[in-house]
Amino acid sequence: MLLEKIKTPGLSHLSYLVGSGGQAAVIDPRRDCAIYVEKARAAGLEITHIFETHRNEDLVSGAPMLAAMTGATVLHGPNPEQPVVYAETVRNGDCFSIGQLEIRVLETPGHTDDHIAYALFDTAYPDRAVGVFTGDALFVGDVGRTDFYPERRREVAGLLYDSLQDILALGDQAIIYPAHGAGSVCGSGMAEREFSTVGHERINNPRLQITDRETFIDLKTSENHYQPPYFRLMEHLNMEGGEAPPVVMRPRNLSLKQLNDCDADHLIDIREPMAYASGHLPGSMSLPVNMLPAFAGWFIEEGQSLALVASNEEQLATAMEHLVRIAFDNVIGGYVGVVPAAAKGEKMQQTPMIDTTEVESRLNNAQNWTLLDVRDIDERNTNAIEGSQHIYVGHLNERWRELNPSRHYTLMCASGARATIAAGWLASRGFDHIDIYLGSMGAWQAMLE
Amino acid sequence: MLLEKIKTPGLSHLSYLVGSGGQAAVIDPRRDCAIYVEKARAAGLEITHIFETHRNEDLVSGAPMLAAMTGATVLHGPNPEQPVVYAETVRNGDCFSIGQLEIRVLETPGHTDDHIAYALFDTAYPDRAVGVFTGDALFVGDVGRTDFYPERRREVAGLLYDSLQDILALGDQAIIYPAHGAGSVCGSGMAEREFSTVGHERINNPRLQITDRETFIDLKTSENHYQPPYFRLMEHLNMEGGEAPPVVMRPRNLSLKQLNDCDADHLIDIREPMAYASGHLPGSMSLPVNMLPAFAGWFIEEGQSLALVASNEEQLATAMEHLVRIAFDNVIGGYVGVVPAAAKGEKMQQTPMIDTTEVESRLNNAQNWTLLDVRDIDERNTNAIEGSQHIYVGHLNERWRELNPSRHYTLMCASGARATIAAGWLASRGFDHIDIYLGSMGAWQAMLE
Repeated sequence: MLLEKIKTPGLSHLSYLVGSGGQAAVIDPRRDCAIYVEKARAAGLEITHIFETHRNEDLVSGAPMLAAMTGATVLHGPNPEQPVVYAETVRNGDCFSIGQLEIRVLETPGHTDDHIAYALFDTAYPDRAVGVFTGDALFVGDVGRTDFYPERRREVAGLLYDSLQDILALGDQAIIYPAHGAGSVCGSGMAEREFSTVGHERINNPRLQITDRETFIDLKTSENHYQPPYFRLMEHLNMEGGEAPPVVMRPRNLSLKQLNDCDADHLIDIREPMAYASGHLPGSMSLPVNMLPAFAGWFIEEGQSLALVASNEEQLATAMEHLVRIAFDNVIGGYVGVVPAAAKGEKMQQTPMIDTTEVESRLNNAQNWTLLDVRDIDERNTNAIEGSQHIYVGHLNERWRELNPSRHYTLMCASGARATIAAGWLASRGFDHIDIYLGSMGAWQAMLE
Repeated sequence: MLLEKIKTPGLSHLSYLVGSGGQAAVIDPRRDCAIYVEKARAAGLEITHIFETHRNEDLVSGAPMLAAMTGATVLHGPNPEQPVVYAETVRNGDCFSIGQLEIRVLETPGHTDDHIAYALFDTAYPDRAVGVFTGDALFVGDVGRTDFYPERRREVAGLLYDSLQDILALGDQAIIYPAHGAGSVCGSGMAEREFSTVGHERINNPRLQITDRETFIDLKTSENHYQPPYFRLMEHLNMEGGEAPPVVMRPRNLSLKQLNDCDADHLIDIREPMAYASGHLPGSMSLPVNMLPAFAGWFIEEGQSLALVASNEEQLATAMEHLVRIAFDNVIGGYVGVVPAAAKGEKMQQTPMIDTTEVESRLNNAQNWTLLDVRDIDERNTNAIEGSQHIYVGHLNERWRELNPSRHYTLMCASGARATIAAGWLASRGFDHIDIYLGSMGAWQAMLE
């Protein structure tokens, strides 16, 4: 018997391979899904069922591709916004045997209308569920977002409350297997810990301490969540069924000349923020490789062509994985070698990093200068530097137009990482007077203490 | 935060790496312990604590080696038979911080006097344990053996009963992390499933359904368990502290001449049973590579020299891992190439495999012939072929002397695998008239149905 978590870094997406008696099921596969078949066959198992907990917003579902590879049946909950063309519909109480394991459907709407949890039973030890795949309904330390139906906000928050009661009714003994861990855009309150049970959540999850339905609804509807534009593309693909990922998951290597000639819609520097600040190719924006899953979808539109600049070939391969998982397949290629390019006399642009002393000085004296805070609204509401302005980093995708290219901007966030993305975006839009507050709010707080 | 199970196949030994905030702990490390350091450092963690649940009988503890590699402190329960020279003693209620995790000591004697369980808390979600490392006290579907103190059998079974109540008192929500899974010599009733909780065990584990202490003691003291002789060596090493494993975990490759000249105490054929039956080097015994952990310790004594015969080099490497984990380090080398040796005219010995029809015929007619059943006593008591005799495969290490080398023996077990080990052992002791019932009790039952 096998139950293995397959974690997708960046997206903090958790999928599961569960098998017994020669048979296996996958819960919420990602797009590059050969990994499930390889792991299953290495354990002598064939994948027969693919369970989706809901129509994902943040990544391309691998269910249709995995079904094509294996002949497995895809199961999906009722009431999606459009038919999920590659899946059969399951209903409350439906049961599926995977060897001696049994998977039982629990309709748990709220996060989405079609949301399903799957309770896991071992028929050899059949009394109560041993686990439950909770999708985006229940996480370790948090519960699902309920902001996807703006006109039905209170209704769907109430539905989630009811669904959580159904999950709790499985009993304290059930291990929970959620679809996301900390770092996901699908929740900001998740625990760092990725293992828990219904019982441990019942007594420790802050959201489950609220026993009044209306209070829960009030709280959920007061939450702030962001929806990057690429969510719409994911929703569409995950009803129609996305395409198989590229067979080769490494971008073509580009020479500097090829890079300069390729005319990509976006030139994306995926090196670490401090490398970008020290020198980057003119016109390039900054999306550090590990931040691609959370931020690429704010700035890149469907079908746009991308050229990458990286520190090494492994970064390029990792970037391609991240991009393909959110359907940004149009990667023309990647270039490695910024320092060698500089050594050949190629012009480099810099984005200075400044420290707290300099920020303080400018706050007191500077003219034609703005300290622009790009953290999210919850962070901003917790504390803010007096005199700074606020635009969320993702919202700069459109709101950069509100800014004045002849003005001097210092970008800040919590540490300097998101500020570099913001600075790079503005630089790629033609802003010349840009710098980054290294350390940002963290350094500011340390100065105050 | 990290919690990873490191499984040792063959021994079905489960150890755990748990970390948070730059710090990590290992629970019950195995002897080849670099894996824990590599996994910890890959996650940005340094191992500071090594927790032993008890003095293991079935494998060499890696605690002293891992402590030497990392500087970590080894913690062990009170009341071992001799001082555990490499460990500090912990007591009920002692607490250790690993980043934001807390590990709390629970004295749980019964399996051994020094047995400890370790409850795991997340200080960010502090209400009740999120998990418990149960060692050999509580498994998925079974509880620990209590046969290690023959003169105190009822007392220690009672101690285990009390210890299990203390584990149950942690609450249904706690995930259990036992030291063994199905296939281990430390329990025969374990579930195939390796994930469970205190709650799921409380309502499903057959042993935990017994709520009367005396009934539990009666049941535990009526169980049959085997103690291979190498257990004594492990017990000794795990108090004194074993040596580091060899740096290179592949045996030296031997030519046929080197193999013939090496004068090893045991020539061990680690190929699969049916390959051994078809032809093996004279004098070799059969211990298929995946059966080494369970059966080598019956036939090999401390310090004896071993030469291996394998199908390929990977088998040799796997065999060395298995052997080193139970302190059989004196591996002279390994030979690959039985078929090429035969092609050079090297003499091969065969051990015929016979079928049910032949066994039936012999049961009716054969003279000077014995059907020898080598299954364990519980299997034998469940069903047996009339006219067969019984000696447990492991007990042939001594009891082969009771047999008559001029008599014809057919070996049987449940399938034919252990029968091949028994046949090979007798062949290596000079028995000439040996064959194997292929399919054994399984085939016999299929014939009856």
